[in-house]
Amino acid sequence: MNYRKVAHYLGIILLIEAALMFLPVAVGLIYREKQIVSFLITIGIVAAVGAILYKRKPKKNNLYSKEGYMIVGLAWLLMSAFGALPMFISGSVSNYIDAFFETVSGFTTTGSTILSDIESLPRCILFWRSFTHFIGGMGILVFVLAVIPRSEGSSIHIMKAEVPGPVVGKLVSKVTVTARILYGIYIGMTVLLIILLKIVGLPLFDSVISAFGTAGTGGFSVMNNSIEGYQNPAAEVIISIFMLLFGLNFNLYYLLLIKQWRSALKDEEMRWYLGIIAAATFIITLDLTVTRHPFGESVRYAFFQVTSIISTTGFSSVDYDLWPSITKAVLLVLMFIGGCTGSTGGGLKVQRTAVLIKNSLRSVRKAANPRRVETIKMNGRTLDETIVSGITGYFAMFMMIVALSVIIVALDGFDLTTTLTSVFTCINNVGPGFALVGPAGNFSDFSYLSKIVLSFNMLAGRLELIPIMMLFSKLGIASDS
Amino acid sequence: MNYRKVAHYLGIILLIEAALMFLPVAVGLIYREKQIVSFLITIGIVAAVGAILYKRKPKKNNLYSKEGYMIVGLAWLLMSAFGALPMFISGSVSNYIDAFFETVSGFTTTGSTILSDIESLPRCILFWRSFTHFIGGMGILVFVLAVIPRSEGSSIHIMKAEVPGPVVGKLVSKVTVTARILYGIYIGMTVLLIILLKIVGLPLFDSVISAFGTAGTGGFSVMNNSIEGYQNPAAEVIISIFMLLFGLNFNLYYLLLIKQWRSALKDEEMRWYLGIIAAATFIITLDLTVTRHPFGESVRYAFFQVTSIISTTGFSSVDYDLWPSITKAVLLVLMFIGGCTGSTGGGLKVQRTAVLIKNSLRSVRKAANPRRVETIKMNGRTLDETIVSGITGYFAMFMMIVALSVIIVALDGFDLTTTLTSVFTCINNVGPGFALVGPAGNFSDFSYLSKIVLSFNMLAGRLELIPIMMLFSKLGIASDS
Repeated sequence: MNYRKVAHYLGIILLIEAALMFLPVAVGLIYREKQIVSFLITIGIVAAVGAILYKRKPKKNNLYSKEGYMIVGLAWLLMSAFGALPMFISGSVSNYIDAFFETVSGFTTTGSTILSDIESLPRCILFWRSFTHFIGGMGILVFVLAVIPRSEGSSIHIMKAEVPGPVVGKLVSKVTVTARILYGIYIGMTVLLIILLKIVGLPLFDSVISAFGTAGTGGFSVMNNSIEGYQNPAAEVIISIFMLLFGLNFNLYYLLLIKQWRSALKDEEMRWYLGIIAAATFIITLDLTVTRHPFGESVRYAFFQVTSIISTTGFSSVDYDLWPSITKAVLLVLMFIGGCTGSTGGGLKVQRTAVLIKNSLRSVRKAANPRRVETIKMNGRTLDETIVSGITGYFAMFMMIVALSVIIVALDGFDLTTTLTSVFTCINNVGPGFALVGPAGNFSDFSYLSKIVLSFNMLAGRLELIPIMMLFSKLGIASDS
Repeated sequence: MNYRKVAHYLGIILLIEAALMFLPVAVGLIYREKQIVSFLITIGIVAAVGAILYKRKPKKNNLYSKEGYMIVGLAWLLMSAFGALPMFISGSVSNYIDAFFETVSGFTTTGSTILSDIESLPRCILFWRSFTHFIGGMGILVFVLAVIPRSEGSSIHIMKAEVPGPVVGKLVSKVTVTARILYGIYIGMTVLLIILLKIVGLPLFDSVISAFGTAGTGGFSVMNNSIEGYQNPAAEVIISIFMLLFGLNFNLYYLLLIKQWRSALKDEEMRWYLGIIAAATFIITLDLTVTRHPFGESVRYAFFQVTSIISTTGFSSVDYDLWPSITKAVLLVLMFIGGCTGSTGGGLKVQRTAVLIKNSLRSVRKAANPRRVETIKMNGRTLDETIVSGITGYFAMFMMIVALSVIIVALDGFDLTTTLTSVFTCINNVGPGFALVGPAGNFSDFSYLSKIVLSFNMLAGRLELIPIMMLFSKLGIASDS
């Protein structure tokens, strides 16, 4: 392990975090809030630690797969640990574990909150809280790759560890250029969303915050009742559409940019994604129309909640915990499916879900004809069997972490629905669950132990298990080397 | 597809079922119950259909993997469909779907019931209801193989389709002899259990019924309150131990019989199984001691419920739905683990669970060193990678059937805990779940649609998905041939 290189990278990331914290300071200055002091203190600490780590210049420049995962795992842990300080120092959140949970929830774009009265917080704190969504959505390491040119060999290992999905494709031959293109598209779409929300009547600050929550598929809002609080149907529809868009693979936007419309429209994962959204919206609309709302409202509510959950954003336009069981069951399944590969969404990802389904159907056919050789295809191309078994193995590991977490969180003694869905929603980076952690509830009543376990789930889900599992293995749990 | 051969086999099975129904007739004669008429009518119908199918002598004698699965899938479906008739004809259950559900639950050794007042039913009906557990535990096809010598090539395909576990080993070179040994051990242990239960004071009839429920790891009882109804601690302990024993791989008993103690004691799956039972019993004992019972009682309750759930029997010695959350979470996870390969238990099986855990740890190590080659071992022997990916794929298929079933069952509008655990408990062949389907509840309030879906889950779980999925594929859902 090239520890100096790892430390050096972590130094860069903390220095960037310190720099990014000047944005909430600026917001605090605009609104004349005294809490900017807590940011200035934090900037001092983070910059100092960052500088010390940065100075550990690596003797050797080699960086392998292992280091890539370690850098990503530690970077997210440290960013969250330091990112929680302003909230804690300013007294907005009374204990550090809660602030840590809230910040992990922000960076991992989960959106689960321990706050019960969000509207009472200062704007600089609220800005930083939602800005973590924006940073976490595309990934902090991808940002580093975008701004600082590195050797090609190192970069791909880092990109692989941070970008979601079973296979990471570079858009162009250079990782740095790929990262810049991705961030360009990301920022462009976010700005467009801010403008649209401002046009339909949201205050500028709220437009920015809502756009951060949407772009990162995070779900933090400045309203206690999430998007429901605005009572603005136009904003709901716009946000729905953008949640759907941010749940798509960003490579598709690049294809559109370089005018390869046809390949973009033929993308198989996108078709699955849109198909699932259409089917789920149809079922829920039908259910809501029959049981409670007029048809038009039902469509709007259904489309909003489906795009919110499948993209793992977690905004709510109504308290869906009060909806009928069938609708809740559909939303529960969508939580696990999640967004597309290479999107800002969490969950298993649509591509993995599709491969799991194809693999299941294949194994039935294979049992009938054991000598049959059949490959699994995505986008018309045969997937290597190691990728297929990697995906089924990923799913199994995912569910085992769920099982273990459920047992620990159950120590708190909440009902089964709360216990199960708190873990489901955190590891899938959705945000709200059902019952006590439903859209009208929050995570404040959990014990510190549960909050740490759920924070671990959020990180494991966002980074797709391996980097976080590897940190554990370094602690001697899964290691043999 | 050799349809004649399939029909011929199904004929044999129905003729055997008709013959087996003379046992409840005998019970009915002893207790002078008029409901034996319903059995005699059923015997007539089943024997007629069986004879017609049997007469379709196959032109060719070849039987491949596909036919093996089809025979097993159809055999279980037909046996349940016909086996439900006495309950329905006698009026013990007022509609056929309920009787079908109850019978599928019996044959698949699930033990979920739609009955609210069990004690009021005639004994011949109760005997048959529990006898289906005994038949289903070891498998009806294995029974056929034991009594009727067949060509070796055909038999292994059938055995593979019915015996649980990722790899089916023959005890001895001949399948027929293997099947006979298995049934010999099975019957011997059951008789021993009946004697022990009689000794500690259960009535003979209740001893027999409880032994059927334990041996098949089914869980039907003649008491409305399951084993709790006897208020007999000695019986509880004996049943606990036998639930544990019937959850073990029967090959181990064969090894003991041929005095290979050492290989039996070294069995890795057994060690995992006993380790999980010890850990779960420890956690639950601790929890119960702190929250409600004296230590001695807590151990007894904990050990009973842990062995009952992991072996997927589903007996209860107390209403565990009232226990604390952590205990319920542990039981929930045990439901999915299930018994050992080659036992009468359901669930994923301990061996699959162990491989899933090993594979997860390996994938973390592999991410660190992509060039590393590491195999997964069970019992010191390397598992072929196709078996490993078969197991991860099996788990994924299992969970996808769970997800789909949950959505359909949710149409009934029950709370999430009821909806989720009804599917979990059925597909894992456990019996009771939590909330409305907890030990004090039953499945009577579900819609017909849900009962059919749950019946499908029970069959899919018992036959390890493939045979039932293949029946569906024959209906054109998953087939391309």
